[in-house]
Amino acid sequence: MKDFLSPEISQQEQWQLVKQHLNYAYQNSPFYKQIFKENAIDISAIKNETDFRQIPITAKEDLQLHNLDFLAVDYTEVIDHVTTSGTLGNPVNFMLNEADLQRLTYNEYESFKIAGVTKNDVVQITTTLDRRFMAGMAYYLGLRKLGAGVIRTGSGLPGLQWDSIQRFKPKFLVAVPSFLLKLIDYARQNNIDYKNSSVKGVICIGESLLNENLEDSALRKRIRELWEIELFSTYASTEMATAFTECELHKGNHILPNLIYTEILDESGNPVENGEVGELVVTPLQVESMPLIRYATGDMLMKIEGNCNCGRSSARIGAVIGRKKQMLKIKGTSLYPQHIQEAMNALEISDYIIEAKNDEFGNDLVILKISEEVKLSPLEIQLKLRDQLQIKLEIQQISASALFQKKFPKESRKPIIFHDLRSI
Amino acid sequence: MKDFLSPEISQQEQWQLVKQHLNYAYQNSPFYKQIFKENAIDISAIKNETDFRQIPITAKEDLQLHNLDFLAVDYTEVIDHVTTSGTLGNPVNFMLNEADLQRLTYNEYESFKIAGVTKNDVVQITTTLDRRFMAGMAYYLGLRKLGAGVIRTGSGLPGLQWDSIQRFKPKFLVAVPSFLLKLIDYARQNNIDYKNSSVKGVICIGESLLNENLEDSALRKRIRELWEIELFSTYASTEMATAFTECELHKGNHILPNLIYTEILDESGNPVENGEVGELVVTPLQVESMPLIRYATGDMLMKIEGNCNCGRSSARIGAVIGRKKQMLKIKGTSLYPQHIQEAMNALEISDYIIEAKNDEFGNDLVILKISEEVKLSPLEIQLKLRDQLQIKLEIQQISASALFQKKFPKESRKPIIFHDLRSI
Repeated sequence: MKDFLSPEISQQEQWQLVKQHLNYAYQNSPFYKQIFKENAIDISAIKNETDFRQIPITAKEDLQLHNLDFLAVDYTEVIDHVTTSGTLGNPVNFMLNEADLQRLTYNEYESFKIAGVTKNDVVQITTTLDRRFMAGMAYYLGLRKLGAGVIRTGSGLPGLQWDSIQRFKPKFLVAVPSFLLKLIDYARQNNIDYKNSSVKGVICIGESLLNENLEDSALRKRIRELWEIELFSTYASTEMATAFTECELHKGNHILPNLIYTEILDESGNPVENGEVGELVVTPLQVESMPLIRYATGDMLMKIEGNCNCGRSSARIGAVIGRKKQMLKIKGTSLYPQHIQEAMNALEISDYIIEAKNDEFGNDLVILKISEEVKLSPLEIQLKLRDQLQIKLEIQQISASALFQKKFPKESRKPIIFHDLRSI
Repeated sequence: MKDFLSPEISQQEQWQLVKQHLNYAYQNSPFYKQIFKENAIDISAIKNETDFRQIPITAKEDLQLHNLDFLAVDYTEVIDHVTTSGTLGNPVNFMLNEADLQRLTYNEYESFKIAGVTKNDVVQITTTLDRRFMAGMAYYLGLRKLGAGVIRTGSGLPGLQWDSIQRFKPKFLVAVPSFLLKLIDYARQNNIDYKNSSVKGVICIGESLLNENLEDSALRKRIRELWEIELFSTYASTEMATAFTECELHKGNHILPNLIYTEILDESGNPVENGEVGELVVTPLQVESMPLIRYATGDMLMKIEGNCNCGRSSARIGAVIGRKKQMLKIKGTSLYPQHIQEAMNALEISDYIIEAKNDEFGNDLVILKISEEVKLSPLEIQLKLRDQLQIKLEIQQISASALFQKKFPKESRKPIIFHDLRSI
């Protein structure tokens, strides 16, 4: 197993890793060799953050259009072929070699430690290890390195989840937060004493547990009212191959500065002030197969500098406020689908999707489609949302089965709540 | 990574491993300590196969009733918690520590080599890594050690499978044979040129590709008529933690004698002659967490001694003729559900299940339930089966959806074709 520097590295050490990474990419990645040549970039002259910003941004489209040009190792070295989830279009292929799998292992090992998981704990993974999903395997590998016990149940199947909880008594779950609501429902319907189960904490994925002000999101509040377990927020993506994880203080997701160099940029590409929202741009460090430099995640969030009271010196990031491309403009008001989701969570409504279209003038038209089984009337929902979001949304009722089909496409690894049908 | 002797070991070397295993179990397994004491077994006195047969058989019921007594390592050492599939009753828990995971890795590494997979190949795993399934993870770990490329697609979802085949060009699949029929159907319906895809071979699991005479089963013939790819039979189970794999000659599944000691026994517990069918009794070697000694698999099959023309000296086993407990007696004729399955495959009918009940006199009553969508009439099927099996089966038509629900219970890892409702 490869050795990695601990996450508690100095800025100077991180800068060394960044420089190594730039050199590696220049020597091995056809895509970056080309970028560096075209832009006449001399790596040895990059000495600080300002110099670093001379390197062009890499966009998702670059990965889509030039996928194999990003490969920096011999193709026969590739072990794991995965894809991104395809939230913003066609999934992109990603490849990992043995060293990348070791890095991924180390990354989750450190992440689970931040959430307080130890060798003596048993953890049930309720997300899939299938469907070309990087994170599922990352959890498994990290927990194995930690020496913790693992139960691979996979996604869905509340009955199997509870059977596994009762058989193996896990202390932690890895889960999508809204799936916890399904687990609670199932437990209630089947007289399972979920409040006294072995489960004490959940490493969460895919949905935000923090709101913009680093307070509990409506979803976290709702779950915690029903089931008093500790919920840990995480943030990650296939492209980053790195996870950001909440510590026990729940004040943002800790960055692993030995594995990723982060920038938060405004519309013009300049760094925003500490605590301001901007787009996260990442340079994942020590990646061999598909190194990325200044990859624009599209995720809007803020960085929190300074020591955390948990004792870690690494900066943290806040909740994803929205995806840059998903920004909605409704009669002059800008907002992200996440804002609508947060408001719907506060109303305790889960059975809905959000559709964005262009109206005849090319403006954004947003329709909230809710299940006919939702108890509040469309008008009531409209009024409550207007109070909270200052906008009036069009609301349509659709059948529960039509909603299910739109929200859970058969081959997707996660529910699709926001459907963006706008032309680009 | 632990070192293992190569599978090409002498009988004497295997005997050393057996003795080590007995000593290990005696010292660490509460269950076997008790067994050895109760039966006054002196391990040092066990010098040959006849002595070895003094050790009592371990049955599935022992594992069900005394699950934790089998654990021979500290509970905190356990990494992977899995369960058996539960074909014969409630699933049994199995546990693996780090050494067991390394053994499992090595086991599949050797198995894939027997089937001819190399570092330069890409393999798509179309079985799940979830649902507490040992084999799914074993495939992944073995392929990683081999250095092959892996695509984790998981089970079902023909669309995702073909998307993955077209994206990543795998040379091999890991698949349940009858799922290949579904893949072919999907390809035809969606104009995918499956005959010219990258796929050249399939490592098969869960269904027999050989009949009793070591010839191609009806299922293998049917697939090969539609798609000329090479199919490799394998045989494995959670309890054995070892796989038996066909080489390119397709004449039985090779035993890995460094990982498993095998006996084929008759009703009285005596070894059958070479080439005769009996129950497979296994002693998986070098297992740490839950060592088993003389575990009766319930599977009826034959061993083929002697060198294989592929150059390997290890013995092979033939197809599973049936599960001991699933034997059916119909008006004096004994047969296994597998015989009915083989006959149905020859008729190219997949949409059916077999139900066994007791009639009012306690005799076996077998009902073949077929989908209303099957084109042959119940009478035609009955006549054709009578010709082949020499028995007249009761046949019932049920709706396609009722059949689907019985055959694919939501939480099962595989289709359930045989439903045994007989009292024991």
